[in-house]
Amino acid sequence: MAKIGIVGGTGYTGVELMRLLANHPEAELEVITSRSRAGTPVADIFPNLRGRIDLEFSEPSIEAYKRCDLVFFATPNGTAMHQVEELLEAGIRVIDLAADFRLKDLRVWSQWYGEEHASPASVERAVYGLPEMNRERIRDARLVANPGCYVTAVTLALLPLLKHGLVRPDAIVADCKSGVSGAGRNGKLATAFCEVTESVKAYAVSGHRHYPEIKQNLRQVNDAADLVFVPHLMPMLRGIHATIYCEALADAAEIQRQVELFYAEEPFVDVMPPGSHPETRSVKGANDCRIAIHRLPDSNRLVVLSVIDNLVKGAAGQAVQNMNLMLGMDETLGLSGVGLMP
Amino acid sequence: MAKIGIVGGTGYTGVELMRLLANHPEAELEVITSRSRAGTPVADIFPNLRGRIDLEFSEPSIEAYKRCDLVFFATPNGTAMHQVEELLEAGIRVIDLAADFRLKDLRVWSQWYGEEHASPASVERAVYGLPEMNRERIRDARLVANPGCYVTAVTLALLPLLKHGLVRPDAIVADCKSGVSGAGRNGKLATAFCEVTESVKAYAVSGHRHYPEIKQNLRQVNDAADLVFVPHLMPMLRGIHATIYCEALADAAEIQRQVELFYAEEPFVDVMPPGSHPETRSVKGANDCRIAIHRLPDSNRLVVLSVIDNLVKGAAGQAVQNMNLMLGMDETLGLSGVGLMP
Amino acid sequence: MAKIGIVGGTGYTGVELMRLLANHPEAELEVITSRSRAGTPVADIFPNLRGRIDLEFSEPSIEAYKRCDLVFFATPNGTAMHQVEELLEAGIRVIDLAADFRLKDLRVWSQWYGEEHASPASVERAVYGLPEMNRERIRDARLVANPGCYVTAVTLALLPLLKHGLVRPDAIVADCKSGVSGAGRNGKLATAFCEVTESVKAYAVSGHRHYPEIKQNLRQVNDAADLVFVPHLMPMLRGIHATIYCEALADAAEIQRQVELFYAEEPFVDVMPPGSHPETRSVKGANDCRIAIHRLPDSNRLVVLSVIDNLVKGAAGQAVQNMNLMLGMDETLGLSGVGLMP
Amino acid sequence: MAKIGIVGGTGYTGVELMRLLANHPEAELEVITSRSRAGTPVADIFPNLRGRIDLEFSEPSIEAYKRCDLVFFATPNGTAMHQVEELLEAGIRVIDLAADFRLKDLRVWSQWYGEEHASPASVERAVYGLPEMNRERIRDARLVANPGCYVTAVTLALLPLLKHGLVRPDAIVADCKSGVSGAGRNGKLATAFCEVTESVKAYAVSGHRHYPEIKQNLRQVNDAADLVFVPHLMPMLRGIHATIYCEALADAAEIQRQVELFYAEEPFVDVMPPGSHPETRSVKGANDCRIAIHRLPDSNRLVVLSVIDNLVKGAAGQAVQNMNLMLGMDETLGLSGVGLMP
Repeated sequence: MAKIGIVGGTGYTGVELMRLLANHPEAELEVITSRSRAGTPVADIFPNLRGRIDLEFSEPSIEAYKRCDLVFFATPNGTAMHQVEELLEAGIRVIDLAADFRLKDLRVWSQWYGEEHASPASVERAVYGLPEMNRERIRDARLVANPGCYVTAVTLALLPLLKHGLVRPDAIVADCKSGVSGAGRNGKLATAFCEVTESVKAYAVSGHRHYPEIKQNLRQVNDAADLVFVPHLMPMLRGIHATIYCEALADAAEIQRQVELFYAEEPFVDVMPPGSHPETRSVKGANDCRIAIHRLPDSNRLVVLSVIDNLVKGAAGQAVQNMNLMLGMDETLGLSGVGLMP
Repeated sequence: MAKIGIVGGTGYTGVELMRLLANHPEAELEVITSRSRAGTPVADIFPNLRGRIDLEFSEPSIEAYKRCDLVFFATPNGTAMHQVEELLEAGIRVIDLAADFRLKDLRVWSQWYGEEHASPASVERAVYGLPEMNRERIRDARLVANPGCYVTAVTLALLPLLKHGLVRPDAIVADCKSGVSGAGRNGKLATAFCEVTESVKAYAVSGHRHYPEIKQNLRQVNDAADLVFVPHLMPMLRGIHATIYCEALADAAEIQRQVELFYAEEPFVDVMPPGSHPETRSVKGANDCRIAIHRLPDSNRLVVLSVIDNLVKGAAGQAVQNMNLMLGMDETLGLSGVGLMP
Repeated sequence: MAKIGIVGGTGYTGVELMRLLANHPEAELEVITSRSRAGTPVADIFPNLRGRIDLEFSEPSIEAYKRCDLVFFATPNGTAMHQVEELLEAGIRVIDLAADFRLKDLRVWSQWYGEEHASPASVERAVYGLPEMNRERIRDARLVANPGCYVTAVTLALLPLLKHGLVRPDAIVADCKSGVSGAGRNGKLATAFCEVTESVKAYAVSGHRHYPEIKQNLRQVNDAADLVFVPHLMPMLRGIHATIYCEALADAAEIQRQVELFYAEEPFVDVMPPGSHPETRSVKGANDCRIAIHRLPDSNRLVVLSVIDNLVKGAAGQAVQNMNLMLGMDETLGLSGVGLMP
Repeated sequence: MAKIGIVGGTGYTGVELMRLLANHPEAELEVITSRSRAGTPVADIFPNLRGRIDLEFSEPSIEAYKRCDLVFFATPNGTAMHQVEELLEAGIRVIDLAADFRLKDLRVWSQWYGEEHASPASVERAVYGLPEMNRERIRDARLVANPGCYVTAVTLALLPLLKHGLVRPDAIVADCKSGVSGAGRNGKLATAFCEVTESVKAYAVSGHRHYPEIKQNLRQVNDAADLVFVPHLMPMLRGIHATIYCEALADAAEIQRQVELFYAEEPFVDVMPPGSHPETRSVKGANDCRIAIHRLPDSNRLVVLSVIDNLVKGAAGQAVQNMNLMLGMDETLGLSGVGLMP
């Protein structure tokens, strides 16, 4: 039984990690820390965990982490980079669910995250935790940077297309729609119920932090890749729907065939039949990504639809998938939950 | 054209007052103040008002209020009581949408609102602003205490029943369901989208501030009146649904007849036919209260259903109705909006 | 591995049964029938099951059912009663998720369900499938009547109170709030998105089919038990919140103690600490029932709050719990899913 | 007082027309027909209209229409074309809120609406009812084709850009998000609450009926105009958010200036400051269209955001605006309602 720690578990990725770990057959939560809520039983804050997780939040403590085989950072951006070196030196594997180790170019990182990076060496060492891109390297990694939610939905949709030269790489539009849980658990007016329900809006049109991360992924596959990325806020809890517009360089059947082939062995990527319209609810609570491809009639325009649950394949589920790989377990352990529909 | 001021207009009652005043034929907004947002155009915070309200929020200023015929306090509880005397002395009529002048018993007020009252004289002077109870006194009032939202829904349902001895007064249960906007416009975790959508809960079961206010109203009609009141939070923006259980002292037809008669001339209370199930959406954005009465078959149990929009008949709409009365205008001016359905 | 059949699986209880069975370690779906959708892959209708359930809906067929150890009827009311005798004779265990075998008094059944009962003998034979009431009898049952959703929430709240004489039995009000999925999967205007979202209403105030079922349960514990029951429709997918008002016959601490004791060994009933306000979302997708008890200050009034997921503990989860008991398995198998929060 | 008729008023455009007409100072509803609901009081179906509209639905009757100055068809596609000639001959003005007279090319019409057109002469006669394009022609029209909802949002966003050559005309993507009310009032499983809430999906990716209508509009301004149009269903009642991607041919300031100038005198089009993110809720219940323009940094990509209420500026409100023009009234009469926020 692997022992697991969570740093900063009072947010939605924290509770989602606990929900998944509570049913994981080979891992158990050993410690969960929170500076602000130390001493409070986890189940007082997250009553869904009553009877399942009996821990209290404790003060952050390197000694406690050392009892663990692997520690998740479910902290805000800019936190893990200050603590990770000590943990790695102590031989503990680390997965950061925030953005500290996602961008390889530190100049770009500073530009988007507004500070100097505290641990360039760790960035170099970190493996980007998208199993569909980096499975083998994740198995051997000591430090994994868990991808952003939008990034996961868009990258999985475009990966086979760019790899096989099926679309023009530099004329891509990714119009993305996200549920509100992507904004985290906090009391901000901007995500108050009365401010977001029964409404839709775009945000950060002039630039969102996930843009350089998507570009970094796509450029690994094709140097010329570029895109326009606009996120939108939807009045729902969970789910990302990426609608991706590009220019096809092959016919519809060939594209469909190549994408199906690319993902044939992937346990969590489901390429739907041509003409499908995936719904975000079909992956609610599940670690699945569903993709559908439409080549428009009498046109070279390709529309690719990709849905995930931002808290699962877009965060905690993908983190558990990475954990399974890093600890030499079956990659799908604890991730067999079916989407909650309705 | 009457000149109107609003103190503290950055909340939902503030924007709702402005929405209603923007189409009022005989009143216009002269000044709106906010300490925290002074200098900001109203329409920057509430874009629905772009092109309709060109004012900026200004610093609270007694001089500005003196240019007004009537001033609304859309401030938190415990604010108006510190400022109202100066305004009244200056000859300005005042309507407080908070709770400062609702309870006549100052001991009870202190118990529920947690401080000494700053202006007992004003409490004595204040008229409770439920037109269906106090229309004539409101016409002559200089200071009106606008009722609480739950209080309005429950009182209107029970008023004719208690007045005409149609139910036992001391065995009443009021199970109330409210939309989230009743909790105000603020960044609290408890009303974050992800905390309240797709969920229902009771709150303040052991005691809610609207309880003594309801009791005070009912006792004006029947000394023995008492009730159990439990509020619930619903995953929706607007609307209160009160489900009231009591013991009938007359037959169904007689009760229906008396209630219809009682409200026959009321412009904003709609007694539905027997067997109806009013929906909160039928009053969304409107100043209406809809009531339906069910006497259960083979039983003396009576179930009364009452719906309002908590921001309109439960707050800003009722305040405008009171303003119309105080300023000698037609009571229904600016309140003819039809519920938005769907 | 037990082989399981589902009759009529195109509704929400059908898909929920499949979601749970997909992760059940000792049961697997052998056949699922639907007259209207025979030949259609299950995953075409319920894409959350893509890659998890590879069956097609097939024509109802007694031969297919005979390959099963147990068959669930997820059909409309009035269906199972026509088919159950043949299955029982063939030695197949049956759980009906509809209402055909819930009411022991056939006259009452006919009155509420509008037809003669087709199989009085089966009614007599059926065990009412609330494990917290009837665990041992369920273990030996060949035919189980799975309880109604409202009924489960209300009965679990009142069971210990009536059993131990902690409340007056004949002065109970159960104000119940349900998500829309309780109305089933169908294209009715009454449950169209635009008709129910952003609104709350009571329905069936004059009488709902779950009323006689609740009364039958309570009367098994106390002959004098009676209640008023009013259901309400909430703008959410899943969840029932029962708010129960009664008259306490013991003090708060004693009541709390007795209820905790009563449910101490129950795997799926969670008695919360005094003063708690359970949220329906804490049981979303989970087989849990959470109960909290409030005795109002200076009063003999007791308010009991009880929440379940209407599709899990209120339908498919309870059915799987019954299946586990009937097949001699650990009662909790396949039911360890944690509530999805947020 | 102009006398108005509505044909087929049991849908959401019907009730919305009535909501607006109930407060129109110079028009009143004379007759409303519905074959299926003849004899039913309007307020029985739409309780928000209780006390405001006292009519019953009546059988369709040319005699009744002849008492009117203008008749709205709020009927399904393919209905008005069979009746309009008789009404026009009788001198009655007609506005069709469906699609019968929107497309000038009858071959295209048949291709998208699946039947032969019954009245080609009327199509020729009809004026397309987008006041911002055709105001003067609408004033003189006897028959107006009220635009589609998506079409209104997209056309208003692109009109000034194409007219002034500010964007490349043939490389446009319009990613559109709509509330569920756009699908009409009916009992279809596809728009049941439990099928659409808490989920997002694209639909009709391979082709939607509003595509040829948008293209027709854009081509009137620029022969080379073409676009990709993908509609998405959002879990909310009202609102369309169009996110439009194109290639800028001028700098940001110039584009902003030209669009502001273009709409400077328009009563219902609000061009927001650069950098704005319009929310659909800011126009909920209002006849407004809000537009914001973003030129991406270091790029020639332009993103235009446009929001309307699909039932108001996208249907009934625009129809009343057209009515006002056709009857020689002030264009804004009855349309001064402010967006309901929250």
